[in-house]
Amino acid sequence: MSGRLYVLGMGPGDQDWITPVVSDSIASSTDVVGYGYYLDLLKEELEEKICHVTPLGEEIGRVELALSLAAEGKSVSLISSGDIGIYALATLVFEVLERSLKSSDTYEAVDIQVFPGISAMQAGASRAGALLGHDFCTISLSDLLTPWATIEKRLHAAGIGDFVVVFYNPKSKKRDWQLAKAIEILLEYRPAKTPVLVARQLTRGDEEIRLVRLDQLDVTQVDMFTLVMVGNSETRQVQQGDRTWAYTPRGYEGKA
Amino acid sequence: MSGRLYVLGMGPGDQDWITPVVSDSIASSTDVVGYGYYLDLLKEELEEKICHVTPLGEEIGRVELALSLAAEGKSVSLISSGDIGIYALATLVFEVLERSLKSSDTYEAVDIQVFPGISAMQAGASRAGALLGHDFCTISLSDLLTPWATIEKRLHAAGIGDFVVVFYNPKSKKRDWQLAKAIEILLEYRPAKTPVLVARQLTRGDEEIRLVRLDQLDVTQVDMFTLVMVGNSETRQVQQGDRTWAYTPRGYEGKA
Repeated sequence: MSGRLYVLGMGPGDQDWITPVVSDSIASSTDVVGYGYYLDLLKEELEEKICHVTPLGEEIGRVELALSLAAEGKSVSLISSGDIGIYALATLVFEVLERSLKSSDTYEAVDIQVFPGISAMQAGASRAGALLGHDFCTISLSDLLTPWATIEKRLHAAGIGDFVVVFYNPKSKKRDWQLAKAIEILLEYRPAKTPVLVARQLTRGDEEIRLVRLDQLDVTQVDMFTLVMVGNSETRQVQQGDRTWAYTPRGYEGKA
Repeated sequence: MSGRLYVLGMGPGDQDWITPVVSDSIASSTDVVGYGYYLDLLKEELEEKICHVTPLGEEIGRVELALSLAAEGKSVSLISSGDIGIYALATLVFEVLERSLKSSDTYEAVDIQVFPGISAMQAGASRAGALLGHDFCTISLSDLLTPWATIEKRLHAAGIGDFVVVFYNPKSKKRDWQLAKAIEILLEYRPAKTPVLVARQLTRGDEEIRLVRLDQLDVTQVDMFTLVMVGNSETRQVQQGDRTWAYTPRGYEGKA
């Protein structure tokens, strides 16, 4: 008898940003699989659940555990912050599933349901105003699984296409030079004064939101909890009282 | 005395996909501004609210109405489906605000709060599996405010960068050739068998999810309620029982 695997995005942090379909999925689960830091944020919801805490970095093990529990007939929630479908565990669920189905039917009947969450880029864009108002792209700066040459080609493509650019994984303890290189490439294509959002701990108590110029981004202020988003050539700032907003218009000035 | 303007993304359709912070904002508003089709979906939440229905297409008027009501001291919710920050009204709020502040302080003290919703691309990617598992871009195919030459440059950039591509505004009654041209351009860069998601009425009763090959997309089956998402060169399909999933792996096969 096979159970169900919910693959759930928990949003940026504040529990009021979690959709009811996600909360209800957790409520109807017997088991919850996630990593420690995140499970700590959810204490109340997780009372009476069996919590399987796995360390950050052991993603494949976490996904295999969740699928195995579901294959045993349990209702399991696999959770991550943000949108689990965007640079997160959802894709690994299907990677592990595909590999497993080649040699075994263990996971054949697991009922998999994926529900997205609000991603950090959406939280950041909304806190700053409306940075994602026109075409944008996301680029992960992690070269663990993607060759740096591919990432660099993509940065040039983002420049050529004048996309608003959202960086995921801008930096980690072992990767410290990629963000500066990425900014250098974008500066070949767009003005030095292009607004950049630097946001930390979005929707949480210690949230920090800053807008800086592209040529003045201080990469030492960026860590793995920081979202960095670069406007396109049309992105503007507007001062309303003591608030500074940034937005990317719907089109191009010459056209309208 | 100035009031508050909530700028709210209502998600793809199903009310269980609306975040509590958005529902609570509506609950604390006296006035709700939106367009007719969407307000109809929310009947229950809107009892005892003053609803200002404006027609589709009159976006600037809708935003000006919402800001004016807030400037009079009311608590106003301006709503749209999906994420209001992604190709939607949020950016227009700041455009109208900036223009107005140049000649008047009417909107100077309006307390603006933007809260995102789950966008169609997230709903579509999750229904299909995990199509947004790696770098992606969004491209609006509407050339009303953006020159077609800019859009075409962006399509080539998406091809060069091997981004997963999400099309917004793929088609309307007056614009019927852009999607076919966009597909033709992407076929210069990626395999004919690249999986494409064609999704209609996501999370609603009559939801339709189809996966087709890039060279077999039938553009006549796409309308303005359809989301079209093209995988990158690594996007894969996996068959689990009678379900077909599509996912974009976290990296590139050669690298891992």
